[in-house]
Amino acid sequence: MAKELKDLTPRQQDYSQWYNDLVLKAGLAEYSAVRGCMVIKPYGYAIWEKMQRALDDMFKATGHVNAYFPLFIPKSFFSREASHVEGFAKECAVVTHYRLKNDPAGGVVVDPDAKLEEELIVRPTSETIIWNTYKGWIQSYRDLPILCNQWANVVRWEMRTRLFLRTAEFLWQEGHTAHETRQEAEAEARKMIGVYRDFAEQWLAMPVIVGHKSENERFAGAEDTLTIEALMQDGKALQSGTSHFLGQNFAKAFDVQFTNREGKLEYVWASSWGVSTRLIGALIMAHSDDNGLVLPPKLAPIHVAMVPIYKGEEELRKVVARMEEIAAGLRSRGITVKIDDRDNVRSGFKFAEYELQGVPLRLAMGPRDMENGTIEIARRDTLTKETVAQEGVCEKIAGLLDEIQQSIFDKALNFRNSMITKVESYDEFKRVLEEKGGFISAHWDGTVETEEAIKAETKATIRVIPLDATEEEGKCIYSGKPSSRRVLFAKAY
Amino acid sequence: MAKELKDLTPRQQDYSQWYNDLVLKAGLAEYSAVRGCMVIKPYGYAIWEKMQRALDDMFKATGHVNAYFPLFIPKSFFSREASHVEGFAKECAVVTHYRLKNDPAGGVVVDPDAKLEEELIVRPTSETIIWNTYKGWIQSYRDLPILCNQWANVVRWEMRTRLFLRTAEFLWQEGHTAHETRQEAEAEARKMIGVYRDFAEQWLAMPVIVGHKSENERFAGAEDTLTIEALMQDGKALQSGTSHFLGQNFAKAFDVQFTNREGKLEYVWASSWGVSTRLIGALIMAHSDDNGLVLPPKLAPIHVAMVPIYKGEEELRKVVARMEEIAAGLRSRGITVKIDDRDNVRSGFKFAEYELQGVPLRLAMGPRDMENGTIEIARRDTLTKETVAQEGVCEKIAGLLDEIQQSIFDKALNFRNSMITKVESYDEFKRVLEEKGGFISAHWDGTVETEEAIKAETKATIRVIPLDATEEEGKCIYSGKPSSRRVLFAKAY
Repeated sequence: MAKELKDLTPRQQDYSQWYNDLVLKAGLAEYSAVRGCMVIKPYGYAIWEKMQRALDDMFKATGHVNAYFPLFIPKSFFSREASHVEGFAKECAVVTHYRLKNDPAGGVVVDPDAKLEEELIVRPTSETIIWNTYKGWIQSYRDLPILCNQWANVVRWEMRTRLFLRTAEFLWQEGHTAHETRQEAEAEARKMIGVYRDFAEQWLAMPVIVGHKSENERFAGAEDTLTIEALMQDGKALQSGTSHFLGQNFAKAFDVQFTNREGKLEYVWASSWGVSTRLIGALIMAHSDDNGLVLPPKLAPIHVAMVPIYKGEEELRKVVARMEEIAAGLRSRGITVKIDDRDNVRSGFKFAEYELQGVPLRLAMGPRDMENGTIEIARRDTLTKETVAQEGVCEKIAGLLDEIQQSIFDKALNFRNSMITKVESYDEFKRVLEEKGGFISAHWDGTVETEEAIKAETKATIRVIPLDATEEEGKCIYSGKPSSRRVLFAKAY
Repeated sequence: MAKELKDLTPRQQDYSQWYNDLVLKAGLAEYSAVRGCMVIKPYGYAIWEKMQRALDDMFKATGHVNAYFPLFIPKSFFSREASHVEGFAKECAVVTHYRLKNDPAGGVVVDPDAKLEEELIVRPTSETIIWNTYKGWIQSYRDLPILCNQWANVVRWEMRTRLFLRTAEFLWQEGHTAHETRQEAEAEARKMIGVYRDFAEQWLAMPVIVGHKSENERFAGAEDTLTIEALMQDGKALQSGTSHFLGQNFAKAFDVQFTNREGKLEYVWASSWGVSTRLIGALIMAHSDDNGLVLPPKLAPIHVAMVPIYKGEEELRKVVARMEEIAAGLRSRGITVKIDDRDNVRSGFKFAEYELQGVPLRLAMGPRDMENGTIEIARRDTLTKETVAQEGVCEKIAGLLDEIQQSIFDKALNFRNSMITKVESYDEFKRVLEEKGGFISAHWDGTVETEEAIKAETKATIRVIPLDATEEEGKCIYSGKPSSRRVLFAKAY
C-alpha cells in the first residue's frame, strides 16, 4: 500500500490523473465492462449512503415524501416538451426488444420477433413519466401541492466520461413538485436550492455560490434554473446541484389541469431538483491532497482508525485490549471506529492506507503509551500529530472531529474566495482565466450571443448569476453594452 | 372515501380483485404508461423504506457492505453460464441504440447510426456483471470473503403482471458473496435465508417455511436454492425470498480463480440472495381484510391516527391541543402519529380512510372525553374499541403496538398451520388442493418427471423441501416409488 500510494500522481503534475488515481486507489469506484458505466465500490458507496441519509432527512423535514416511477419512458413522451427532447434526445439508451433467443451459431441473439411497438427510453430524468402520472393524481387545488422525491439511477449516453463526474449511468435523487401557483412553485425551487447549499456547506464542507443559470445553461424544459456552484482545487467550477422552476411547461405537455379556488381550470405549476453521485467527485476534488482523500467527518465512513504499535503477540493483545476500551467510549458517542489489528501488515503501511482513505483521525498506541497513559492522535486534514493523555481522549476526539469539519470548510472557503477575481476588460478576463483560473466576476450584456462567443473563444461559461449580486452599473466585457450586474464565469467540469 | 371504500371487492367474492382494489385504493401503487411497470406511490414506498432500513441493518450486522454495479450487462455475458441464459434470455429488455434524432415527420425516431456494437441487457439479476467485476478484485484467499449487497432496480419482461407480485421492473436487493470454500459459501446461503426468515416473521409478522427448492424450481445457475415460503389468505403460496449456493458456476464462467492457502489456484465459491418489492404484496395478502390494509406496527408508516370529534372551531382547537400533548409523548417513544384536523372531512370518512390504510391504532377524542379525561382507542387488526384514561395512554399505546405485532403474527401462523394438510394418495392430494388449498405435505419420489406431471395435471408445484423435515419412509403419491421424506406442494403466485 505504501508503495502503491507513492504512485498517486501529484496534483501539480496532472490534476486530472491525480483524481483518477485517487478514485481507483482509495477504492471508491472503477470502470465496468460497460462503456462509461462505473462500479461504485463499497468504500465509495458508504460515502453515498451517508449523503443519502442526510439529504433524505432534510427532504422529509421540508415536507417531502419518496415514491418510485418507472425506469422506462415511452419514446413519444419526449417529443411533447420541445426543449426537453432537444436537450436529451442525443444521449438516450433505447430499448427496442424484449427477448433474446439462442443463436444456432452459439450464444444468444436479439429475437427479431420481440420488437417493441414503441421504443422505450431509459430515463435520463423523469419529468415526462412523472407528469404523465400526475395527470391522474390531480383534479382540484385540494390535491396540491404534491411534493415527491425519488432515489434512482438514470442514464445519459455521454461520450466523454469521468468517474463520478460524468458517467453514462449515475445515481441521484430527483424531486418533482406540483403547485397551485407560480409563486409557490418558485418558492419551492428556491427552498430546495437552499437545502442543497446547506447540505454542501454543512456536510460536504464545501462552500458554494447560489444563483441562477443563464438561459444558455438552463435545464431543458425549465423557465429558471438555480444552481449551487463549487470551486475545485484546480480552479475549475463544478455544478453540484440544480433546482428548476418549470413553469407550466410539463403540465401543458401532459395536459395536467386542476380546478382552482375560483372554480376555474388552470395548468399546474412545477419544480424539479436533483443532486447525484457527482457530489462524491466534488467532495474528492474540493479537499483531498497528494496523500489521498481528505473526508469531512460528517461523511467519513470511518471516523477514527486505531493502529497498535507492538512487538510480539502479547504486546499486540494488550494494546488492542486497551484500544477496545477507548473504542467503546467513542462508539457510545456515535463515532465510527476501526481497530486495525492485522498482524501481517506493517504499521507504516496502515498509516499510509488510512491517509489514502481520508480517515479524519488516526490513533496510534504502543507499550510506552500504555505505561505513560498516553496515545498519539494524527489529524488527516493537517497531517499533524500530538500525544495526549488517554484520560478524556473520547471528549477530545469528539471535539476534534467537529473542529476538522469546520477547518476543512474554512480552508475551502478561503481558497474559493481567493479565486474570485473581478475583471473590467476582456483582455484581463482572458489573462486571469489563463494564469489563475477560478471564478471571474465580470459584467455581461445578458445575451446568449455574447455568452456563446466567450465560450467559443475561451471555453469559459457563465456558471452562475449569484442571488446576492448587487446592482452595479457597468459595461459588458465583450460587447461593451450596458450591464446592471456582474456574473461569474469559469471553466467547468 | 367511505363510499369508495365500499367498492373494495370482498375477498370471498374475488380475492384477486380484492387485492387489486386494495393496492389502488390504499394508494400503494398503480400501473404506469409503460407496460407491466408500476408507480410505487408515497404510501407504498414508505412501507418499502421501512423494509429497506430494517433489512439493511440486518445485512450490516452480519458483516455485509453495500456497493453498486451497472444497470446494463453486455449480451455476451449471459451466454457464459448455460443455465443462467436459459432462465433469463426470454424476458430481457434489450438496449440496441444510444441516440434519438428528429423525425422530419414530427417527433423523434431512433437514430440508425447510433447502433451499439454489442447489445446491452437491462439487468434481470446481476451475477454476470458482478462476477466479471470480482475477477479484478480477487487474487488470493486474503481477498476473500467478499460480502457485497446492492439495492437496485431490475427488469424481467413478464407477460402477465400483477402489482408488486410480478412486474416488469421491480426494486430489490441482491447479495453476492465470494468465498474460499464450498462450506463457507453454503453456510452464507444458509445464514441469509435465516436473516430473511427472521425479517419475514419479526417485521412482516408473516410465518414462513424455510427449505430447499426442488431442482425444477431452482435459480438459473444455482446448485442449491433455499427459500422462505409464505401462505396467503386464499391458500396460495408465495415465494418471499431466496438464497442460492452457486457453487463455482459463475467463477468458472468468468474465470475467477484465487491462490488458496496451499498456494494452488482454485475457482471461487459463491452465494447470492434477494428479496424484492414483492414482499409488499406478501404483506398485503397475508394480513389484510375487507376493510382494507392490516399493517404490522413495525412496518406501518403511521402507527397512530388521531381523529378529533367536535362541533365548531373552538372545540376543534381545544381537542387538537390536547391531542398534540399526547402525540408529543408518543413521538418521544418513537411512535409515528398523525393528527387529522381536516375540518372539511367528516370523522366517519376519516375512520374509514385509516382502516383502508391499515393504521394500527386510531384514537378519537371529543368534548365529553376532554371532560372525563378519557380517549377512545380502536385497533385495526381486531376492529375493537375501548375507552381508556388519558393518563398513562402513551404506555398503553406502546404496549398495544407490541401486542398487535405479535397478534397479527399469531393469527397468520394459526391460519398457516391449519392449512398444512398431510395426504397419502394422489386422489386425496387433488381433493385437498381443490377443496381446501394451502400447503399439501406429501411423499415424492424426488424426480423432475413426477413434479412436472403433477404440475401439468393440477397446477400445484413443490414449494419447499423443509429444512426441518423429518426422515420418514413412504411412497410417492404419484409414482408409488419409495420416498424418504415429505415435501410441501401448493398452488403459488
